[in-house]
Amino acid sequence: MPISLGDLASRFGCELIGDPDALVSDVASLQNAGPKSLSFLSGSAYLTELPKTKAAAVILRKQDAASCPVNAFLSEQPYAMYARMAAIVCPEPVLPPGIHASAIIASSAIVAPSAHIAANVVISDRVRVGENTAIGAGSVIGPDCELGRDCHLVANVTLVKRVKIANHCVIHPGVVIGADGFGNAMTPEGWVKVPQLGGVIIGNDVEIGANTTIDCGAIGDTVIDDGVRLDNLVMIAHNVKVGAHTALAGMTGIAGSTTIGKRCMFAGQGGAVGHITICDDVIVAAKSFISKDITEPGTYAASFPAENAKSWAKQVARFRRLGSLIDRVKKLEK
Amino acid sequence: MPISLGDLASRFGCELIGDPDALVSDVASLQNAGPKSLSFLSGSAYLTELPKTKAAAVILRKQDAASCPVNAFLSEQPYAMYARMAAIVCPEPVLPPGIHASAIIASSAIVAPSAHIAANVVISDRVRVGENTAIGAGSVIGPDCELGRDCHLVANVTLVKRVKIANHCVIHPGVVIGADGFGNAMTPEGWVKVPQLGGVIIGNDVEIGANTTIDCGAIGDTVIDDGVRLDNLVMIAHNVKVGAHTALAGMTGIAGSTTIGKRCMFAGQGGAVGHITICDDVIVAAKSFISKDITEPGTYAASFPAENAKSWAKQVARFRRLGSLIDRVKKLEK
Amino acid sequence: MPISLGDLASRFGCELIGDPDALVSDVASLQNAGPKSLSFLSGSAYLTELPKTKAAAVILRKQDAASCPVNAFLSEQPYAMYARMAAIVCPEPVLPPGIHASAIIASSAIVAPSAHIAANVVISDRVRVGENTAIGAGSVIGPDCELGRDCHLVANVTLVKRVKIANHCVIHPGVVIGADGFGNAMTPEGWVKVPQLGGVIIGNDVEIGANTTIDCGAIGDTVIDDGVRLDNLVMIAHNVKVGAHTALAGMTGIAGSTTIGKRCMFAGQGGAVGHITICDDVIVAAKSFISKDITEPGTYAASFPAENAKSWAKQVARFRRLGSLIDRVKKLEK
Repeated sequence: MPISLGDLASRFGCELIGDPDALVSDVASLQNAGPKSLSFLSGSAYLTELPKTKAAAVILRKQDAASCPVNAFLSEQPYAMYARMAAIVCPEPVLPPGIHASAIIASSAIVAPSAHIAANVVISDRVRVGENTAIGAGSVIGPDCELGRDCHLVANVTLVKRVKIANHCVIHPGVVIGADGFGNAMTPEGWVKVPQLGGVIIGNDVEIGANTTIDCGAIGDTVIDDGVRLDNLVMIAHNVKVGAHTALAGMTGIAGSTTIGKRCMFAGQGGAVGHITICDDVIVAAKSFISKDITEPGTYAASFPAENAKSWAKQVARFRRLGSLIDRVKKLEK
Repeated sequence: MPISLGDLASRFGCELIGDPDALVSDVASLQNAGPKSLSFLSGSAYLTELPKTKAAAVILRKQDAASCPVNAFLSEQPYAMYARMAAIVCPEPVLPPGIHASAIIASSAIVAPSAHIAANVVISDRVRVGENTAIGAGSVIGPDCELGRDCHLVANVTLVKRVKIANHCVIHPGVVIGADGFGNAMTPEGWVKVPQLGGVIIGNDVEIGANTTIDCGAIGDTVIDDGVRLDNLVMIAHNVKVGAHTALAGMTGIAGSTTIGKRCMFAGQGGAVGHITICDDVIVAAKSFISKDITEPGTYAASFPAENAKSWAKQVARFRRLGSLIDRVKKLEK
Repeated sequence: MPISLGDLASRFGCELIGDPDALVSDVASLQNAGPKSLSFLSGSAYLTELPKTKAAAVILRKQDAASCPVNAFLSEQPYAMYARMAAIVCPEPVLPPGIHASAIIASSAIVAPSAHIAANVVISDRVRVGENTAIGAGSVIGPDCELGRDCHLVANVTLVKRVKIANHCVIHPGVVIGADGFGNAMTPEGWVKVPQLGGVIIGNDVEIGANTTIDCGAIGDTVIDDGVRLDNLVMIAHNVKVGAHTALAGMTGIAGSTTIGKRCMFAGQGGAVGHITICDDVIVAAKSFISKDITEPGTYAASFPAENAKSWAKQVARFRRLGSLIDRVKKLEK
């Protein structure tokens, strides 16, 4: 829906250089922007595109404004400002209140009148669904789950049991929350399953990517704090605690009973072993895993970037001869 | 449901020191236990909590009994004993026999009268479902699948085709069993799909974690033996054999036609390449992968725990200069 | 269905040595083949099985024909020829045209009369489904998706929004295409979600494995080109481009905005960081990840195969002392 630059400027308290009556109706990259597009420049990587852009307006830092050939929004955080304005220019479709005729809802469940329950949703005993929350098609909500207001379970989401989700959360398809953790006691006759009796508690403004799994606690709960972002195919084991505003990129796995601090970031395919504590403000590099408590904020890494396979094979061979190399140096020292 | 310590003691043949008439109705950690809680002490990590616990009873080893301020169950395997007692104190809800009105069941399928078929389940041609087996909401059971007795498919499980599951298995949401394996023949015109014509055979007492996938065999079957435990987001490729009582932790991947022995354990994000054989009693460390046959039981590893990223970068640089270091040592030796 | 060797030979223009009237009705390995089985020998690994096989016919290279005790098809690509013949000998079951009574289809959707829409499928607004395309039970097709002809969504597939799939594609259960990418702008108050406004474009003859996820673009589309093969539990982030005939094995993850060339292959648990370009004909070894642009075709690696954990621990300790070893060599050189 077309909105004027002046409206956007006043809504977000953002300085506008240019025509407040100009309209935007979509968003685009600097290169692909048309005369109704809102665009942004957040780093220097695309600076050369700026003078050529045909956007209606560009969100950028003050120091880049001189090179901007079109209307400019000035912001110290152009990417965040873009995120907020884009949500207005290209709003999510509104899902109407009501329960689809095919949805199956336990009589003990309480669903807010403003909630949207889509086709083939199954809602079990004692579930509560808050105001304006939307549950997408094919989702299964098991017993004793609670969903706050303004949440969106996109489709085919499974909340198994005892999952409490606060407000403004987005849960993408294929996510499974509250399945049994991997609790097994070894005996001479084989594994004995350890009952998984806890739940999962998820804070406000959490987003959970497609096909991610979060297990219920064994005793006590698994906890995902406010503002956490989990990407796709992430695994959160039983009794893990993820601190507020922490972001875990795709395919990261956190083993059981580990506690992660606030504002941490794991790059893709990262991991952490179980039963450790990672402090606030820790960054973990791609494909790296944390094996013990981390008490100092900072960046941690343990992965090798790929190189030519033949030269890598030589490197591995040299690595394997390190012991004999050390011996040779010892001999030389004598 | 409250149960007396005496009942638990006699049911499991477990020695009780204390009041046989005392009741437990929940389970808890030593620290959080209340006067009706059953708790346990399995290692030394929580020994300092023992004297302060308010539990009704604690399951522990004989040597720890002296420090126990409350009733004590003596067991050489306190964690396994806890697992068994917890299943009695906090039993799974019973799912009533019957087929939900919304379930869609092929006329050639045979469903035992005691089976529980939940809402929106789809059961295809020639499927058999055994006594007391429960199939949770949204699950799809493809043609020619067989489920034994006392199995539980929690919800949104997909058995694609030709999947045979024995008795007492638990399959968590999002699991896909029997999808086509990754069989592709390269030609100058691109990949040609190789038909995947086998099935999947799963033994007794197997548990499979959320969003795990097990592919059907290309020719012949993929086999998961009795007592195997697969965590979440595990991948089992076509024609893999997993031996009895082996446990694969989260995000482990086993490539095609590999055979894993009995009682093996893979830690998280582990892996094995295809077409190899791993003997019984092999343990694989976190994020490590097996590249060739393993014939000796034992522990195998190949991962670096993360360290400070700057010091790691220096290590990687030193690693890359290993060749020149070896040359320098050679020169010194001359 | 039984088919004569002569029929197969003429259908595929394949030279037959032996009886054209002999029939095959199944496929099997050389070892397990019976008198109606079609088998193949593609490498030298199973050459010793050839003289003992009881197959009706074996597809093999000319140079192996002398050792073949039964009818022989001669092909320079025996595995690809097997793939094509097996699809005739053991055809996929035909899914009849029509829409199951339980399917829920938006009035603005257009479904071809020859399409097969299974039980509990949900099809949203403005969706188009092409001729002979089959959508399996429990699948959810979100708004503005388009499916070409002869596609097969096996079951429980989720296309979220704006997903365009061309012809002859196979999508396995649990796949999620078009979910929001992991777009978050950091602010002092926490993460702000960046609206994900693009779509996903998938070419012809693409196969996508179980529980794989492909996110929609942030601005612009995520693109999977013709003939691409994605295995299970693969993650394709927003705005990735995967070139034609590229194959990504299980658990591979490609981070946002990365472009992969044609005919690339990633082994299992591989990866690539975001915002890089990988040229055509690149092979990436198991568990390895690409951290920067690749401009030369070839094989790239960066993983260590697992070894005995004690010897590995010693290697890691030696690796950690590399700095002091370098210092010692420096001292010796002085």
